[in-house]
Amino acid sequence: MTSAAFDAVELIRLKRDGGRLPEAGIDWLIDAYTHGSVTDEQMAAMAMAIFFRGLNPDELSRWTNAMIASGERMSFARLSRPTVDKHSTGGVGDKITLPLAPLVAACGAAVPQLSGRGLGHTGGTLDKLEAIPGWRAALSNDEMLAQLEDVGAVICAAGSGLAPADKKLYALRDVTGTVESIPMISASIMSKKIAEGTASLVLDVKTGAGAFMKRREDSQALARTMVEIGKAAGVRTVALITAMDTPLGRTAGNGLEVAESVEILAGGGPSDVRELTLALATEMLACAGIDADPAQVLDSGKAMDTWKAMIRAQGGDPDAPLPVARHTEVIPAAADGYLTRLDAMAVGLAAWRLGAGRAKQGDPVQAAAGVTWHASVGDRVSAGQPLFTLHTDTPERLERAVQAIADAAEISAEPVARGDIVLERIS
Amino acid sequence: MTSAAFDAVELIRLKRDGGRLPEAGIDWLIDAYTHGSVTDEQMAAMAMAIFFRGLNPDELSRWTNAMIASGERMSFARLSRPTVDKHSTGGVGDKITLPLAPLVAACGAAVPQLSGRGLGHTGGTLDKLEAIPGWRAALSNDEMLAQLEDVGAVICAAGSGLAPADKKLYALRDVTGTVESIPMISASIMSKKIAEGTASLVLDVKTGAGAFMKRREDSQALARTMVEIGKAAGVRTVALITAMDTPLGRTAGNGLEVAESVEILAGGGPSDVRELTLALATEMLACAGIDADPAQVLDSGKAMDTWKAMIRAQGGDPDAPLPVARHTEVIPAAADGYLTRLDAMAVGLAAWRLGAGRAKQGDPVQAAAGVTWHASVGDRVSAGQPLFTLHTDTPERLERAVQAIADAAEISAEPVARGDIVLERIS
Repeated sequence: MTSAAFDAVELIRLKRDGGRLPEAGIDWLIDAYTHGSVTDEQMAAMAMAIFFRGLNPDELSRWTNAMIASGERMSFARLSRPTVDKHSTGGVGDKITLPLAPLVAACGAAVPQLSGRGLGHTGGTLDKLEAIPGWRAALSNDEMLAQLEDVGAVICAAGSGLAPADKKLYALRDVTGTVESIPMISASIMSKKIAEGTASLVLDVKTGAGAFMKRREDSQALARTMVEIGKAAGVRTVALITAMDTPLGRTAGNGLEVAESVEILAGGGPSDVRELTLALATEMLACAGIDADPAQVLDSGKAMDTWKAMIRAQGGDPDAPLPVARHTEVIPAAADGYLTRLDAMAVGLAAWRLGAGRAKQGDPVQAAAGVTWHASVGDRVSAGQPLFTLHTDTPERLERAVQAIADAAEISAEPVARGDIVLERIS
Repeated sequence: MTSAAFDAVELIRLKRDGGRLPEAGIDWLIDAYTHGSVTDEQMAAMAMAIFFRGLNPDELSRWTNAMIASGERMSFARLSRPTVDKHSTGGVGDKITLPLAPLVAACGAAVPQLSGRGLGHTGGTLDKLEAIPGWRAALSNDEMLAQLEDVGAVICAAGSGLAPADKKLYALRDVTGTVESIPMISASIMSKKIAEGTASLVLDVKTGAGAFMKRREDSQALARTMVEIGKAAGVRTVALITAMDTPLGRTAGNGLEVAESVEILAGGGPSDVRELTLALATEMLACAGIDADPAQVLDSGKAMDTWKAMIRAQGGDPDAPLPVARHTEVIPAAADGYLTRLDAMAVGLAAWRLGAGRAKQGDPVQAAAGVTWHASVGDRVSAGQPLFTLHTDTPERLERAVQAIADAAEISAEPVARGDIVLERIS
């Protein structure tokens, strides 16, 4: 194939008019975009055309493969352990990766968790772990492989060599109003996960008010699309659709979520976090062909041992005290009754405004900032009892965080049952 | 309104999701794009969103006004003659502007015909007139006004000061597969015509195989949209939908079309060119409120006098011989019968390949290159008689032109009637 074999305008018009992109045309487009001969304005027009017209499964598989081919592809074939990875589409208080990776590793798998940083109202796994004194996110490929073999779990930054086309395209979509496309979201996630080289993958696709996908049917479509791409690429892939109307656990914020994860690893912690951790662990172990009971491994303390080994292997001190915010403010419950709603988006926004998240890439985050809520949906509360604690190092941020949290909680006379966490399994 | 009042991504998402752009948001977007703070990739995404979602009449009117406001606006209010302009969406062999402008001027109107150059298979009015020795396309605004008052007709290049936002946006649409949008085509044409300052406007909207709009309903929609924009801006606007399956007249090429136009001005020439010239002149005179019979004025020689004055006023010699191509090739009819089809697109492509048109902006064109056809649809032909003559200064171009023209003509045993030229009037 020569680089003159396709014309960007013709490919855009073809997709715009509902046609199917030729396989070699997709390869050419992604390669030419990565190298700059297809321009940002052309790719923006194509992205918007795909927003409206979609990509069929064959196009999408090819598109994903072309993004993978734009960079390096890792291999874990030399490891003695079976590899299995997890990806979450992101939610408020979602610290599941932290207890999950060492738990599944303690059961015998290798868990290569290449993670990112937070942007907007959801936090980033690397930001959370960086609250631990000494811990570092950047590992070489050799360090990563050695740690996977020895410890079984690694949570580190994805190298820039994986799917550079995705990196460029994601930045473009972000400024051109073309993020919300199920095929492009799927290709973005799956190209990185497949390039990473995992043999199997469990997807946690969030749905609800605090999730990127608010509607159940969109979350289902995203899950199905990603599972299809994974299977087409030879990766055993399963998705759970999980609820994200209410934030997970009792904390949102970097160090706060590390502390809550350690509670889970100690066999305690909020029941929803434990439930979701075990549900995802069960799926991951099944994918990896490992016959183990994750609840038993969690309660045995072996997952905690793996956690400590994982943190130490990356320079962190798992026993050092976590940073504490210089300022806190308690928000009391306004009435007697039952907590019937706790809005994930409002809690996430408050944590972000307190300094736990960033407005743009590269901004610093506060290790100790965030929100603690002292009741879960369904709990009885009394007027005046502490409902939220806001944590920050910069008290000038409190006012806007208080505004954000003001309507997050709804207290009613009649109790409600908290809904299920795991809503559906798609494989 | 401050420049921070809108966010480009939010406006793109609003249009993408089927919303209505706020009026001040449209003003902001066009202004920010013209000045570079909205980027090409953002405008490309917006253009593709508009391709799918459209613009309602209020949005479109505002969009057009914002493009007009991006540059200067001319005024012909000082002229003693009523102004009326014509715009054609472009077709093969469409030289109508050349006889029409002096004809309507000879009837008493002022015809300010700001024209463009050709790109692709349709020619440009300025390219045609430049075949006349000495003629120049560039006039200052003062020269233009003086010529309109004295001669009544001017055909010249549009200054870059008119609707610069359109100029920038058109170039972007051209490389991003977003040209084919009825609202954006309409806003592009009408912003220039309204900024030019004409009091009334007659649109020749082509439909058929050789036109930009192949389908009648698309041509109707384009005509209706442009008429609405014109009326909203206080310009009396009428559209004729005219046939463009078969090329107009008997020639396609720059100097060749000038010669054919002079035949029309002399009272002769192909009947379809005369018919369309008179139909458009009738509409223009009605818009301008002038009671005159254009056929009589044409046959009286007054239109020819105005033509010569118009050419002389722009430095041209209307009596100088037109350039003749250094090489010609005659294509004979392949069979006895009737000419039942003559494909406008194939003829236009052949003329383009012979050197009459350009592949990209700024390419030179040959004054003498083009195609002559020696029969019209409905005419009887005999095997071996000349059917086409191809003209070029560069014989290496002949082979691909012959390929292009090969299937342009269809000869059948049974005759067909040539269809109507003017199909419909929209006002």
